[in-house]
Amino acid sequence: MADFNALATQFTQFYYQTFDTDRSQLSSLYRDESMLSFEGAQLQGAKDIVEKLMSLPFQRVQHRISTLDAQPTGANGSVVVMVTGELLLDEEQMAQRYSQVFHLVNNGGNYFVLNDLFRLNYG
Amino acid sequence: MADFNALATQFTQFYYQTFDTDRSQLSSLYRDESMLSFEGAQLQGAKDIVEKLMSLPFQRVQHRISTLDAQPTGANGSVVVMVTGELLLDEEQMAQRYSQVFHLVNNGGNYFVLNDLFRLNYG
Repeated sequence: MADFNALATQFTQFYYQTFDTDRSQLSSLYRDESMLSFEGAQLQGAKDIVEKLMSLPFQRVQHRISTLDAQPTGANGSVVVMVTGELLLDEEQMAQRYSQVFHLVNNGGNYFVLNDLFRLNYG
Repeated sequence: MADFNALATQFTQFYYQTFDTDRSQLSSLYRDESMLSFEGAQLQGAKDIVEKLMSLPFQRVQHRISTLDAQPTGANGSVVVMVTGELLLDEEQMAQRYSQVFHLVNNGGNYFVLNDLFRLNYG
């Protein structure tokens, strides 16, 4: 149980730290077969996914994780992670809540994001 | 693209309709290897998962889906689904927002829930 929880925690910390400092660097975490569903938009491939993330209309962003749950998705070391958290954008004082899912696939000990689903939580 | 979206929509409609009318019937959707993370509690196996769902302290419940996103998780027809939605419990007037992930695994054309992750959204 410890392994996939540790992997999920390490991955999400690295992912959001990279996102919040230089999101162009996220391309190394995706591959050609990777998919992103972002607020209903669907993209595939590291290049298109990172272009989408780079095009988001804010300069500064800070992710804060509220909850993190992880489960193995089979015997090959792949893991599904559900995050709920808060986003702080630019000079805004009010955080926006979001939900995000990562499916991390183990490729010979190197993990990449096969599935990435993101939604802001309105309400 | 249509197939996995249609599957995800059909599955979630059936799942929540079953949950809201007689949640003991959900056991047919899980197997021994299925996992549930429910507000941080971790359970495995159809029996323990349904016992957990049956033990939740409300009599009447209504799920309303706000957003639904789906992606294939490989070439075998399996699908990951992220739902955000609202729960109405018993006589409460205020809905509670939640996020839920299902990983639906294709076993010869019959789908079961391998991964189920659920969190209420506070905030």
